Amino acid sequence: MRPLNRLIQLEEALEFVMEKALPVKKTETIPITDATGRVAAEDVFSKLDVPPFSRAAMDGYAVRAKDTFGASKSKPVRMRVLEEIYAGSVPKTAPRRMECAEIATGAMLPKGADAVVMVEDTEKEGASVTISEAVHPGQNVSRMGEDMSKGTKAISKGDVLNPSKVGALAAIGVKSVRVYSKPLVAVIPTGNEIAPLDKTLVPGQVYDINSYTLSSVVALNGGQARRLEIVDDALDDLLKVVRDNKDCDMLVFSGGSSVGERDIMLDVIERMGEVIFHGVALKPGKPTLFGMIGKQLVFGMPGYPTSCLSNAYIFLAPALRKMAHLSSGSPRTVTARMAKRVVSTTGRTQFLTVRLEGEIAHPAFKESGAITSMAFADGYVIIPADVDLLERGEKVVVHLL
Amino acid sequence: MRPLNRLIQLEEALEFVMEKALPVKKTETIPITDATGRVAAEDVFSKLDVPPFSRAAMDGYAVRAKDTFGASKSKPVRMRVLEEIYAGSVPKTAPRRMECAEIATGAMLPKGADAVVMVEDTEKEGASVTISEAVHPGQNVSRMGEDMSKGTKAISKGDVLNPSKVGALAAIGVKSVRVYSKPLVAVIPTGNEIAPLDKTLVPGQVYDINSYTLSSVVALNGGQARRLEIVDDALDDLLKVVRDNKDCDMLVFSGGSSVGERDIMLDVIERMGEVIFHGVALKPGKPTLFGMIGKQLVFGMPGYPTSCLSNAYIFLAPALRKMAHLSSGSPRTVTARMAKRVVSTTGRTQFLTVRLEGEIAHPAFKESGAITSMAFADGYVIIPADVDLLERGEKVVVHLL
Repeated sequence: MRPLNRLIQLEEALEFVMEKALPVKKTETIPITDATGRVAAEDVFSKLDVPPFSRAAMDGYAVRAKDTFGASKSKPVRMRVLEEIYAGSVPKTAPRRMECAEIATGAMLPKGADAVVMVEDTEKEGASVTISEAVHPGQNVSRMGEDMSKGTKAISKGDVLNPSKVGALAAIGVKSVRVYSKPLVAVIPTGNEIAPLDKTLVPGQVYDINSYTLSSVVALNGGQARRLEIVDDALDDLLKVVRDNKDCDMLVFSGGSSVGERDIMLDVIERMGEVIFHGVALKPGKPTLFGMIGKQLVFGMPGYPTSCLSNAYIFLAPALRKMAHLSSGSPRTVTARMAKRVVSTTGRTQFLTVRLEGEIAHPAFKESGAITSMAFADGYVIIPADVDLLERGEKVVVHLL
Repeated sequence: MRPLNRLIQLEEALEFVMEKALPVKKTETIPITDATGRVAAEDVFSKLDVPPFSRAAMDGYAVRAKDTFGASKSKPVRMRVLEEIYAGSVPKTAPRRMECAEIATGAMLPKGADAVVMVEDTEKEGASVTISEAVHPGQNVSRMGEDMSKGTKAISKGDVLNPSKVGALAAIGVKSVRVYSKPLVAVIPTGNEIAPLDKTLVPGQVYDINSYTLSSVVALNGGQARRLEIVDDALDDLLKVVRDNKDCDMLVFSGGSSVGERDIMLDVIERMGEVIFHGVALKPGKPTLFGMIGKQLVFGMPGYPTSCLSNAYIFLAPALRKMAHLSSGSPRTVTARMAKRVVSTTGRTQFLTVRLEGEIAHPAFKESGAITSMAFADGYVIIPADVDLLERGEKVVVHLL
């Protein structure tokens, strides 16, 4: 059994991880209907004017603005109505002096007209209309190209495609868009005591939890999880998994909770790549292993479910978001007061899960081996390495799970 | 052309919508690997103890605690080592007085042992070990059932399944879970001037934007969008769409931006159900129509892309979240200062899109017809109906898009 050499501080560990996590370069082209939340890998320019013609912004009458100058309720002007223009149709006439066309919102403005009088300011009488309000040129008109003119950049490389950006693509007739591929993460449960969910447990076994929690964190942070079958803690089996998953951007091993198993993971990374750190001053989550195999980030997560999952929040999520070209994300937090005094160890950052009752935070941590330390919690408080005590009633920031 | 009758205030309109939006009752059973973010429709109780046996929480030696009482560095005790117990294996021996077993983290505690001495506090010598620290019964042991005992509720009906709750299901060997079905939303683009993205525009036409932005908002708020083909503004066609989509929980028509088209939508709802409101004191988004057809919520959204999308944020998103059993969600907001004075109309709530430059908010609204009023914005400020002016430099809350 090899002991952990030197525990590094959380901040230092995170710096190493974030330095190695590089935004993925691989891209794929997908329909815009699937693009919400994805990150554009290209600038997209408009090949047309939007709208492609000047159109009425109101229901009313398309006029030559100068014919209305001076019009008012007490001194209305009267015009001849040439036709009715519906949205989607093409005007057949072109108004000349004191002529106009009835027009619907969104319909093409007829040649010669340069403004629309709102229907509320008019009164139709047979083939003519009385207009009781003056309009200026361009009033109540959406000019051709006003939304986007030909050549306008509709979306930029790096944009997260929210509903309005998806809409900007639709507006210019673009059905599919090139986005960055989701970082592919091999999630590899290891451990001789771990059983798949569809097997009945034999004495000494527990069910695989970590591959499910890790895949869930991957999905929530812009990644694509490849959840593999459980691998025995044997060097050859682990080496084979590494060789079989060369297409992944990240490998996350979970399990190997015992010192002996950690040794094998250490051997795997040392043999195939480089160990960056092994052991973090963090509770839970001390025996965390991080290294690089070629361009792949490799995590050896502790096997205990709560250690593994809290580490996924601390290391894996921010690394993955960076790789996925996503912002670090605004964590959902609330402030609360501690229900009771909690002692922490100086020199080690503590990830304390809490259950919220109104604005009171009750410690929910049982032990690192218990998934309910997190599943029955509402969030967690990070106790910095230089803090050894949270007093009862002390204000804390709770990161919601 | 029928005018809007009475504009109702936004708060009143929202109350009507939220009162009609009822949480869906339909459920479906899905694999836990797809369950992240879904809402449990059942309580799930554990059929087993987790862990199913008492196990070592540390690498070390499984002992009878009382044999270590009084042990210290200066007065160590010596024990016979019966065997080595690995994780996943079953102990073959049972320690009696001054006997112990070497044990790995996660491995089953042998019968008779009730504590584990950490490896750091021991020194092995051949077939025996010297122990220099006393342990109390239960120390460094995860008791059988400590995480969840048989009968514990692992997840509750209504729980949003986050990674740790997915983990709680895995821990008890549950591979699939019953969740509430996503509310099904028919998204129906209407308008004779609207063209599908794969057609070349003919004069008078613009591309369909709204069905894409609406579907995107639906997907982001726990719903499932059924995006339909463009429907002409004809009563029979619209009635047929309603009849064909009786399985949906919500119908959202977009388009019908002109008064004439709104009339047809009004006729459709009046004929098949009940109009709840028509016209909201809101800018943009005034000509919004809301009604019920049987148990279906029906929205007639304004056709202008920015009006339609801002309305989707205001009405559709909260209604859908309630229907999907999701919390209203904490909106992502930042505070900023207005780059310039903005005048609003008293009596009407304004949804002002803004572009952020650091902490300065620049108005980004062009016109309701321009999707870039939103696509080129970072968020929006809600100007309440009783506020008629935002001063330059005034502090505002920006809801991020």
